[in-house]
Amino acid sequence: MNADAAVQPIEVTQDAYDLRGVVRLTLNRPDAFNALSEALLDDMQTHLADIAKSDARVVVIAGAGRAFCAGHDLKEMRAAPSLDYYQSLFARCTKMMLAIQRLPQPVIARVHGTATAAGCQLVAMCDLAVAADTARFAVSGVNLGLFCATPSVPLSRNLSRKAALEMLLTGDFIDAMAAKQQGLVNRVVPLDMLDAEVAALAKSICAKPRAAVEAGKGLFYRQLEMGVEAAYQLAGQTMACNMMDESALEGVQAFIDKRPPDWPHTSGR
Amino acid sequence: MNADAAVQPIEVTQDAYDLRGVVRLTLNRPDAFNALSEALLDDMQTHLADIAKSDARVVVIAGAGRAFCAGHDLKEMRAAPSLDYYQSLFARCTKMMLAIQRLPQPVIARVHGTATAAGCQLVAMCDLAVAADTARFAVSGVNLGLFCATPSVPLSRNLSRKAALEMLLTGDFIDAMAAKQQGLVNRVVPLDMLDAEVAALAKSICAKPRAAVEAGKGLFYRQLEMGVEAAYQLAGQTMACNMMDESALEGVQAFIDKRPPDWPHTSGR
Amino acid sequence: MNADAAVQPIEVTQDAYDLRGVVRLTLNRPDAFNALSEALLDDMQTHLADIAKSDARVVVIAGAGRAFCAGHDLKEMRAAPSLDYYQSLFARCTKMMLAIQRLPQPVIARVHGTATAAGCQLVAMCDLAVAADTARFAVSGVNLGLFCATPSVPLSRNLSRKAALEMLLTGDFIDAMAAKQQGLVNRVVPLDMLDAEVAALAKSICAKPRAAVEAGKGLFYRQLEMGVEAAYQLAGQTMACNMMDESALEGVQAFIDKRPPDWPHTSGR
Repeated sequence: MNADAAVQPIEVTQDAYDLRGVVRLTLNRPDAFNALSEALLDDMQTHLADIAKSDARVVVIAGAGRAFCAGHDLKEMRAAPSLDYYQSLFARCTKMMLAIQRLPQPVIARVHGTATAAGCQLVAMCDLAVAADTARFAVSGVNLGLFCATPSVPLSRNLSRKAALEMLLTGDFIDAMAAKQQGLVNRVVPLDMLDAEVAALAKSICAKPRAAVEAGKGLFYRQLEMGVEAAYQLAGQTMACNMMDESALEGVQAFIDKRPPDWPHTSGR
Repeated sequence: MNADAAVQPIEVTQDAYDLRGVVRLTLNRPDAFNALSEALLDDMQTHLADIAKSDARVVVIAGAGRAFCAGHDLKEMRAAPSLDYYQSLFARCTKMMLAIQRLPQPVIARVHGTATAAGCQLVAMCDLAVAADTARFAVSGVNLGLFCATPSVPLSRNLSRKAALEMLLTGDFIDAMAAKQQGLVNRVVPLDMLDAEVAALAKSICAKPRAAVEAGKGLFYRQLEMGVEAAYQLAGQTMACNMMDESALEGVQAFIDKRPPDWPHTSGR
Repeated sequence: MNADAAVQPIEVTQDAYDLRGVVRLTLNRPDAFNALSEALLDDMQTHLADIAKSDARVVVIAGAGRAFCAGHDLKEMRAAPSLDYYQSLFARCTKMMLAIQRLPQPVIARVHGTATAAGCQLVAMCDLAVAADTARFAVSGVNLGLFCATPSVPLSRNLSRKAALEMLLTGDFIDAMAAKQQGLVNRVVPLDMLDAEVAALAKSICAKPRAAVEAGKGLFYRQLEMGVEAAYQLAGQTMACNMMDESALEGVQAFIDKRPPDWPHTSGR
């Protein structure tokens, strides 16, 4: 690693885990517990925009050092106190969080350590999350007098409302197993198995045709905000279009013929 | 069973489990793993329409043979590939799925084996589900390049969003216990207890007055799509009307008098 | 306790558990299993209105005698049967339930015994709930022919829909552990630990600045009824305003300085 690379707040790894199309974005401010400085938010936004237009198939978000992510950079926040500044800071952070949900590719949080405040929000915003048993989670802003309002948005869409509100009002940590039981993460494994588990999940998704994954992820979040009838109408349209894709026609035919589908190794756009 | 009966895609059993008013609809294409052919969808639609107007109290949906339901009939789907055809097919399937939710009577899925794709969707759409420990569940279309878009609608309204998305993106199976923990089924029992458990649940519902069950089921789904204030307003109206029903006035009086309610064995309309 | 106090349907304890700012409201009709008579609903409404304007920090709702709360007062309901009366009764009850959600202070249900029908609804409406292992929960109106329509509103916003519908259609009890697993309560402890657990939770919330807790609770419920983008916009505004509060500026600075925040013991308005 050269000196220039070391100063980038996000470290990008292409074909991570030796898997073609898997991009790992590592929050790389270990001395600051990977706090989401303005520079880091901007860097993340840029990378997500690039990935959206790329051939990448899966994104993994990881953290360097001991913590996964400690949330906003409090020193930066405290240095310039004004309502305008805070509004613009939270808007910038929200933009990045929504970019994760809107990304065509699935995003997996790889959580090896502590995820607090906007760091916990980041886990909640990812499509999937794999945690080591060393991970723990809190929305601890309330301990400083700052209720984790923006983190409450995805948290309350992952956990039952009483569980979410308890975390938000007490600021207490939950461990990885509780996070799994409550819906915040998908899987919990020992720390030395974490990369293998993330890689297995990423590999499974890479094996699926791009068109199905991209259309499916987009549909999933849009239909969640609709009534059941409108949701079904959109889902039916999406599925009919997906079925007309070459990869689906071939996949279904291969299934009927009891043979593996003849798909290119990486489905291009 | 005569030859004519054998060709019906849905087998209808009145007073199933020796319980008056319980109708069991058995998906009866065991050699095709009870795939939802167009003929089966139409047959199901017809039976649901008849049941809606009948004295039936509870519907049980079961599957013949080894599987519960393998989803759409892929051979049929692949035989006539056109966007129009797929749109109309998914619209037809959606209509049947919504008819389950709109049915005045509660619908219980009796899941003894594999439920995949639209078969898993069918379980999710039922009001209640009892599974044998031999059951397993997947939304596996993505394995063929066809994201389970319409199944994602009820799945994401049963499970937490990360759990639903993991199933949709990986196509992996979950077992019956995971399905219970995640909210897809209500109860899991050994296979040889499955009918007894379904019967017990159906019997419990049959013992309640029809007016309360019918008004309650309808209200439940309508209020779910409203804000809390509008939901309460509708619920208050529904409950006031329900309370004026003879069966409720008698039920409440009987409770006060510490005696069993004097209800007709089957509450007529 | 004098004779006058004994006839109040709600017993008010200021600084409960020796914690300044904690108000305990005890449903005090033990012979009627704390049924929600009109007088009790009115008394509760009055106390909540007073608390909303007070310096109180946390509210605890408890029940006197063996039961937590048995729901509506059926004798009262049966005495004056008319559609108008029932509409007005459920509207009055709804008003009280919504006042709990709209209260600036968090409300904790302390559930030591049976909570049925509107008593179960009361638990579901509270922000947090701590149950003894002796508690049990049912929405049992359907057993009397009266579907628990208004209780279904918060119940279906706490539990997964199949779990909620099973309770509503069968009227069956669930125990405290099931209530925790399904999201109806936050914590379950042995009965002799119940007050200590409630006190610990209340104390934790009292230690946070009022501005953060009040703004946070309000935001939490409002954003739940919005799409994710609108939710984020409101949350960002709320958090920026919260950050400009003296207590947050001091809390964040104290964190940076690695010292305890210099907050007044009770944050005034």
